[in-house]
Amino acid sequence: MLGNFSYCNLTKLYFGDESLDYLNTELPKYGKNVVLIYGGGSIKKNGIYDAVVKILKDNDKNVAEIAGVMPNPTVDKLYEGVEIARGHQADLLLAVGGGSVCDYAKAVSVSVNCDEDPWEKYYLRFEEPDCETLPVGCVLTMVGTGSEMNAGAVITNPKTKQKIGHVFADEKIMPKFAILNPKYTLTLPHYQMVAGIYDIFNHICEQYFSGEDDNTSDYISEGLMRSVIHASRSANENPQDYEARSNLMWAATWALNTLVSRGKSTDWMVHMLGQSVGAYTDATHGMTLAAVFLPYYRHILPYGVQKFKRFAVNVWDVNPEGKTDEQIAGEGLAAMESWMKELGLIMNISELGATEDMIEGIADGTLIMPGGYKVLDREEIVNILKECL
Amino acid sequence: MLGNFSYCNLTKLYFGDESLDYLNTELPKYGKNVVLIYGGGSIKKNGIYDAVVKILKDNDKNVAEIAGVMPNPTVDKLYEGVEIARGHQADLLLAVGGGSVCDYAKAVSVSVNCDEDPWEKYYLRFEEPDCETLPVGCVLTMVGTGSEMNAGAVITNPKTKQKIGHVFADEKIMPKFAILNPKYTLTLPHYQMVAGIYDIFNHICEQYFSGEDDNTSDYISEGLMRSVIHASRSANENPQDYEARSNLMWAATWALNTLVSRGKSTDWMVHMLGQSVGAYTDATHGMTLAAVFLPYYRHILPYGVQKFKRFAVNVWDVNPEGKTDEQIAGEGLAAMESWMKELGLIMNISELGATEDMIEGIADGTLIMPGGYKVLDREEIVNILKECL
Repeated sequence: MLGNFSYCNLTKLYFGDESLDYLNTELPKYGKNVVLIYGGGSIKKNGIYDAVVKILKDNDKNVAEIAGVMPNPTVDKLYEGVEIARGHQADLLLAVGGGSVCDYAKAVSVSVNCDEDPWEKYYLRFEEPDCETLPVGCVLTMVGTGSEMNAGAVITNPKTKQKIGHVFADEKIMPKFAILNPKYTLTLPHYQMVAGIYDIFNHICEQYFSGEDDNTSDYISEGLMRSVIHASRSANENPQDYEARSNLMWAATWALNTLVSRGKSTDWMVHMLGQSVGAYTDATHGMTLAAVFLPYYRHILPYGVQKFKRFAVNVWDVNPEGKTDEQIAGEGLAAMESWMKELGLIMNISELGATEDMIEGIADGTLIMPGGYKVLDREEIVNILKECL
Repeated sequence: MLGNFSYCNLTKLYFGDESLDYLNTELPKYGKNVVLIYGGGSIKKNGIYDAVVKILKDNDKNVAEIAGVMPNPTVDKLYEGVEIARGHQADLLLAVGGGSVCDYAKAVSVSVNCDEDPWEKYYLRFEEPDCETLPVGCVLTMVGTGSEMNAGAVITNPKTKQKIGHVFADEKIMPKFAILNPKYTLTLPHYQMVAGIYDIFNHICEQYFSGEDDNTSDYISEGLMRSVIHASRSANENPQDYEARSNLMWAATWALNTLVSRGKSTDWMVHMLGQSVGAYTDATHGMTLAAVFLPYYRHILPYGVQKFKRFAVNVWDVNPEGKTDEQIAGEGLAAMESWMKELGLIMNISELGATEDMIEGIADGTLIMPGGYKVLDREEIVNILKECL
């Protein structure tokens, strides 16, 4: 913990199989006009929509809806939502869904009172809002992104093939409250479940594999990773294992609410690569990360051997005796690869719809960020992407 | 994570060797009348007092002082502080010191507008405040209690020999902001440093050694414990090791800000025993915990072997091969005992001033709480205390 930093997270979390009741505690704190935001309609099939609408009515709220938020919310959908929220004079944006819905609600929140084009202001120029923002609440139905307790919001522009995340600096943009009911995640298809699990794990990796100092954050990360590995195996074997699903839900929140990055550098290149793949393929976010992970980390391993060795021993219980640092480090990544296969993750971008002729375009869309053990050049990006095919 | 729970922590933390500058960011948020609260005057010797007073003046604040807050703040000192805060019509209570000063500020905060006797209301009847509370800010100069990011406040009544902690339910009682500058801790005497280190470790133990479910919180605890062990060895060897001291400071905050107890049961008996010893001896808090730890945990080990085994393997790297569960569990506690001796902790209550004739009184003052692997009876308390002599 060598740097100067601040930490503040205002989100109130309600966790457990009875947590939706607490929507009754939160709603009276806000005005009458609520915009209910959700995705493709699965919440109408599993009863969550009806339960939420009943509580909104019981609390005498005047409700408008933004339905059909897609897995990679688009800039046109953002414009549409902003108009609805303005027309409804919204006092609260209530997101019911996964990370995409929650991200989208935050993007609407910073755009409703913004006089400029929010895509240009927030996603091309990375500016902070200078207008009033709307409070966001969240009822989480999928696990992975951590969006329920952070100030990040990813938006995609399909025309320019850009998928860009902005982590806003002001903690006021974080959801005011989030309701985390692990039961809601039990009905997710296996594909979505494991994509979410991988998203959690990858978030932790991207904050862990950077820096060479001794840092409490890295120890917390190791604990979270061990918990995710353990719980993911239980959930993969029995998706109805409430205990495992609840641990995954809680770990997901703490994997990306700023805690494990405090006082250290981070390396978000897997997200940069995966997001660019996502902009070309519209593939599930977690799968795009899983598909680029190994070629990227094998590429940078020689520049950060000590950390990869630590990862092998402390996270994967690799026995270091009689081995070189490189061997130990390699065995850690191999253990991770086995675990990824065990879960059934997609581990190449071809299966996600990417083709060789897209490589140059995906490379162009990949923002090169510092922070990793090796800052990549464009040629390395292209080579890594080819290995991902 | 099987239970229903909520989590919210409003404290804004500023961390690092330049963190005091952020007092300038926080002060304008509050009214003109500030009560500056501190302890025995060490902050006047090391320059922290002057630095804080200068910032208060630069921000045009009207300052009153409560000086001389003792390591175990007394109920009479609380009454005195309440009068000062009332007389000054305080808008902000600014605690500059360690956990005792910070606890004390929170106790004043809930008492200033309270019509009843705060000792009776909050410490004997454990009620929550039904009056307005005052905002508390904190500049931390010692490490251990975690008081900078929680809603707990321990107060001692020397007449009745009761040292009682109340963890208030409302997150609004947590400090609004806390300034954590590891440099301030570099000048602490070795005795205070290791007492603080042990306090951190024990907080984690008391939340870890309870329950038999699989819980992400326990994995986070294991990470924090590994960080504390590692950093404590560096700090013990070289107290001027800023990196080690900063990791200890950060781990201390997260060890007792409610995170690692979410969704699980906890066992606070070491604190109950230690606090009762403290009420009789006025000994340093962390040392009272160190002095009762081993006899207590050796007593309950047979009732929680699996968790003690996990502790041995995951925290102390005990090799489990070819050993019984009991052997592995015992080796974990033995490793912990060696570490405690290495740090130079006081590991019996006699050295803290307790004598055999106090045992019955200390046992009477020990609140028996459920949550542990074995709920003790009074005879067991007496026997454990005798082993602590």
